[in-house]
Amino acid sequence: MTTIALLSDFGIVDVYVAEVKAALLRLGPADLRLIDITHDVPPGDVAAGAWALARFWGQLPPGAIHLAVVDPGVGTGRPAVAAAAAGSYFVGPGNGIGAFLGASPDLRVVRLARRESPPGRAPSTTFDGRDRFAPAAARLAAGLDLAALGDPGLPADLGAPPRPAAGGCRVVWVDRFGNLITDLRRDAAAAAALRSGVPLAVAGRAVRGPVAAYAEGARDELIWYWGSGDTLEIARRGASAAALLGAAPGLVIELPAS
Amino acid sequence: MTTIALLSDFGIVDVYVAEVKAALLRLGPADLRLIDITHDVPPGDVAAGAWALARFWGQLPPGAIHLAVVDPGVGTGRPAVAAAAAGSYFVGPGNGIGAFLGASPDLRVVRLARRESPPGRAPSTTFDGRDRFAPAAARLAAGLDLAALGDPGLPADLGAPPRPAAGGCRVVWVDRFGNLITDLRRDAAAAAALRSGVPLAVAGRAVRGPVAAYAEGARDELIWYWGSGDTLEIARRGASAAALLGAAPGLVIELPAS
Amino acid sequence: MTTIALLSDFGIVDVYVAEVKAALLRLGPADLRLIDITHDVPPGDVAAGAWALARFWGQLPPGAIHLAVVDPGVGTGRPAVAAAAAGSYFVGPGNGIGAFLGASPDLRVVRLARRESPPGRAPSTTFDGRDRFAPAAARLAAGLDLAALGDPGLPADLGAPPRPAAGGCRVVWVDRFGNLITDLRRDAAAAAALRSGVPLAVAGRAVRGPVAAYAEGARDELIWYWGSGDTLEIARRGASAAALLGAAPGLVIELPAS
Repeated sequence: MTTIALLSDFGIVDVYVAEVKAALLRLGPADLRLIDITHDVPPGDVAAGAWALARFWGQLPPGAIHLAVVDPGVGTGRPAVAAAAAGSYFVGPGNGIGAFLGASPDLRVVRLARRESPPGRAPSTTFDGRDRFAPAAARLAAGLDLAALGDPGLPADLGAPPRPAAGGCRVVWVDRFGNLITDLRRDAAAAAALRSGVPLAVAGRAVRGPVAAYAEGARDELIWYWGSGDTLEIARRGASAAALLGAAPGLVIELPAS
Repeated sequence: MTTIALLSDFGIVDVYVAEVKAALLRLGPADLRLIDITHDVPPGDVAAGAWALARFWGQLPPGAIHLAVVDPGVGTGRPAVAAAAAGSYFVGPGNGIGAFLGASPDLRVVRLARRESPPGRAPSTTFDGRDRFAPAAARLAAGLDLAALGDPGLPADLGAPPRPAAGGCRVVWVDRFGNLITDLRRDAAAAAALRSGVPLAVAGRAVRGPVAAYAEGARDELIWYWGSGDTLEIARRGASAAALLGAAPGLVIELPAS
Repeated sequence: MTTIALLSDFGIVDVYVAEVKAALLRLGPADLRLIDITHDVPPGDVAAGAWALARFWGQLPPGAIHLAVVDPGVGTGRPAVAAAAAGSYFVGPGNGIGAFLGASPDLRVVRLARRESPPGRAPSTTFDGRDRFAPAAARLAAGLDLAALGDPGLPADLGAPPRPAAGGCRVVWVDRFGNLITDLRRDAAAAAALRSGVPLAVAGRAVRGPVAAYAEGARDELIWYWGSGDTLEIARRGASAAALLGAAPGLVIELPAS
């Protein structure tokens, strides 16, 4: 059983996700399994999509196909790609959403040319998720070799990483609970002072940590911890840290010097 | 493997969709596959549900069952129906949501009488999605013939189409990106002037088109194109056309004369 | 085919639900089936989660596993449990969300100790849904006996029911349509006056009932009926009763004396 995991900025109110899934079921193998990573990436936010995809990558059983479409440049010259790396697959636009795969030693990339629309429908120029990426993902799931999906491509066809690597600590996502998720890895050099106990402050407010559980915070207290994605997160017990701090993705947090 | 595709106005916050799915799993075959078309049709908006269902229809593998429930008249005399047309099935209220099937030459319709509630629960009068439509869809999926589900019905049991056919061009859906999706088909007579290059204006503003990609628009420019549903759509690059134009479903757009 | 049904307060915007599902697919049997009950329980609202879970319980085929995580105390001393009752399974925090199972004569409870994180990721202290509950649910689905998942536990490990049993009638959920769902069962002693026709009033306004269908109400009229969960519900035809009455979960409705 092959799994295709879907990530997009399509939302779930419209029928777009369902049309992508219909293409997968129509063109893929009978025992296909579909799961949603998220469809609520902020519209057109390639950087947010890239972060979510990189975080999720590697958690599914081997052979999984990641169909990730945040694609404000659909219909332009940006490449459409499929790639294999570390036993999994990526299919999506070459706009940087899959650029984190560039570090994989076994990376293979192809450029997708073919379009295929639903029965009786003209091929669209605005919906590559349904008419270009889904057919490619379905064929991979059916056992077709990556090389048969298009012309050989280069790692550069994945596009440039959407953000420069942050030297410090940047908020990359604000979750439903108002927790700030940053890109500072637990083992990063810049985290040395935090690891040795120097206090953290954000927007002039002290943030206590590391704690091991939300419930270690007093009610409404700001706390930090190494989160479930192995990076620094900031939360406020029983309330939204983002609302208190006026924080949004992109905010740079200054770290104490070690 | 049989696929049941679900469309409703139940939303996904409440447990209603899960209860419908539980009925399908309890009463259907072991190898049933479920996918969601959307559950965010505006509450009670049969016209919007009918448009979404008609757009999606025909994209799944043959034999698929479409369980579509936008049903403000639940518990009244409106028929409950199941229908077969062009190799697929529809199950839902006879309030017009499936009226577009009336044009199918091989249409067959039955009226559903039976109700079946979850174990230990009294049959409801307010939740036909779970207690009447889902059991019928599950039985179709299990191989029961349409005729065995109820008494023979007529095409009229599907109900009247929720909107008169628009001579001009009407907004039928506003998507997550603020794009206006209309019912004007690319090959419609009324589209002749557009096809020959006469400009389009909406609410006194010029709309440039047809373009082949969102990215052909300048930032914030209004553009139009033949969308992924083969009808005219209006978008604004990187922003919401609906917000700028104050447009909502039902808006009639005047077309230039050819 | 074993079904795992998921309930949480994670929302569907973030990748949390997908990470839980990835753990289930990675560690569970190949023919696993996943369905969502809801992920939009209000953040941290154990009482709302408990109500939704209890309402849904018993609707899936025998052997189904209910993975229910509304867990503001994650990382503290609250037990992590798995339980079997009446042919189904519950896995989640012992904070009362599964306390309604305490009445089952065949209840068995174990305390979960083991944590298991995604490949290459440190075990988290903040995401037991992914790292503790999902692995236990996956193993149950794969056929492991409940007793093998942890140390024997007691019914008290499920936690205390989140709300005292209401003598009267309490709003437990407000649905998408603005309908008020209460905990007053049709056969409760307190419902005797209603059953014999004494009128109901809420916030000084008459509520007519019982009706058998929403459409029996006049436009904007307040009506009540025995809902699809077999408890009293209050609706307003074509509009939100909750908005009109300023009602939210927790509101106590006074019943007429019989």
